Amino acid sequence: MKVLTYMQGGHKAVGILKKNGQEVVPVNYLGCGLVNMTEFIASMTEDKMQKLEKNAELMDGIPMEEVRLLSPIVHPKQDVICLGINYYAHAEEAARFHDEAFGGERPQPIYFSKRVNRAVGDGEPIDGHFDIVDSLDYEAELAVIIGKDAKNVAEADAFDYVFGYSVLNDVSARNLQTSHKQWYFGKSLDDFTPIGPWIVTKNEFENPPALSIRSYVNGELRQDSNTSLMINGVAKVISQLSQGMTLQAGTIIAMGTPAGVGMGFEPPKFLKAGDVVTCEIEGIGKLTNEVK
Amino acid sequence: MKVLTYMQGGHKAVGILKKNGQEVVPVNYLGCGLVNMTEFIASMTEDKMQKLEKNAELMDGIPMEEVRLLSPIVHPKQDVICLGINYYAHAEEAARFHDEAFGGERPQPIYFSKRVNRAVGDGEPIDGHFDIVDSLDYEAELAVIIGKDAKNVAEADAFDYVFGYSVLNDVSARNLQTSHKQWYFGKSLDDFTPIGPWIVTKNEFENPPALSIRSYVNGELRQDSNTSLMINGVAKVISQLSQGMTLQAGTIIAMGTPAGVGMGFEPPKFLKAGDVVTCEIEGIGKLTNEVK
Repeated sequence: MKVLTYMQGGHKAVGILKKNGQEVVPVNYLGCGLVNMTEFIASMTEDKMQKLEKNAELMDGIPMEEVRLLSPIVHPKQDVICLGINYYAHAEEAARFHDEAFGGERPQPIYFSKRVNRAVGDGEPIDGHFDIVDSLDYEAELAVIIGKDAKNVAEADAFDYVFGYSVLNDVSARNLQTSHKQWYFGKSLDDFTPIGPWIVTKNEFENPPALSIRSYVNGELRQDSNTSLMINGVAKVISQLSQGMTLQAGTIIAMGTPAGVGMGFEPPKFLKAGDVVTCEIEGIGKLTNEVK
Repeated sequence: MKVLTYMQGGHKAVGILKKNGQEVVPVNYLGCGLVNMTEFIASMTEDKMQKLEKNAELMDGIPMEEVRLLSPIVHPKQDVICLGINYYAHAEEAARFHDEAFGGERPQPIYFSKRVNRAVGDGEPIDGHFDIVDSLDYEAELAVIIGKDAKNVAEADAFDYVFGYSVLNDVSARNLQTSHKQWYFGKSLDDFTPIGPWIVTKNEFENPPALSIRSYVNGELRQDSNTSLMINGVAKVISQLSQGMTLQAGTIIAMGTPAGVGMGFEPPKFLKAGDVVTCEIEGIGKLTNEVK
């Protein structure tokens, strides 16, 4: 099931995309009240979701042309948790670019976070902040959306705590990311977190999801890998983080990016104003944004 | 003016501590409605605050013995922004402990973040997570609370955007902080962010605040410095971050810790269950928590 956030007549709402892909059924038609996505996720159980999916198909929806798509989680309740250097080929290109910041031994996953004042939706522009950024980069990533509060979760149970998946572009200012040592600031500028086009619930995927993941800049294929090639998988990450840190419902975990980002080319291919970036994951969809 | 969050009769409320230090006046007695601290901060102007402070003195408050103090911002709206290695003497002790993680040149401030599921208040316990932590440490820090949305702020105007200050203990699991390379996870375990005992509004301090900052473990003085000795000051940090990242009202910035943390001793003096940590800043107060 595809769950999305949209704007219609000045109002923001959560809806379910019907299987025809052309109509959205507002969840408040389905007895869910007026909720934002984080509240919706926290209120769901697998039973409720099955019923919602069935009922949505029986109803007339709003034609997608009549709504404006927003990021499914416009205002994440907490910063997005991200993995760094989580595909082998990307590890090599990153160390080549800047060994001090990206190199070295990594026996454990690298976790950092990204502040998101407002997540950018599919079709919305990305501010490149070119007054302070000289090396703007893209990173196509699988976003895992946590469905219920997760604490001390065993790896074997980890997928019970997943609500679904989305596509996330971990936009990065390489100059700020490296000059401030810790990556937070260079990852957290306004507009640096496109997420979308929607969330696809986990029941549509295998555990763990093995999906092709690609990115394109102005139509040129840049990244082309598969989420099965992650160094640290979804279950390990949920289990490890939840040992000490309760992952609240609605938490977003960005699982790292494969090789092919701009800094990986020689010379680097950084983004400039007017560039169009598309991140795509099999079974989820395409997230396209123009740099301005 | 001291602004605090407290619990009474099962209800959480925001209040103003009268100058006698013995009574709290709920802000909803003062015409502010039922708000949490982040909403209260966002609704304030300097005029309104002056009136509130005057009116609070004219009213009978609730005796402090009848309320239970909570952290002033129990559920921060976004992760806490932190500065790493922001006092010279601490830079030396940190590099001595683990050069790969803490050493090297630092021409720019180091920013990282700390997820806070629930901020720990004065007098509440800290879970040491000793199943996964073997090197628990304390860090007394000045917390700056942003008062209104800050974007592209000049250094000269930075203090216009400050609401006030509090004391923050940036509790850290050194083993997780170093083994995961980026510091986020080792700083973000549940209970790792005591903040309190209250927020003192900026009008009570010089700009920039030059305040003695100390910490004690079981009564033994460990850190003893002054906030005037920061490498990067409050105005520079607000200005720099706000160039690309809107700092929303209620944002908490922890300004880094001086020398004297546990990892700085030879051998290190890490925290164990039963230890009592007090962080104290002149003009704000004491934040005391027992490790459990």
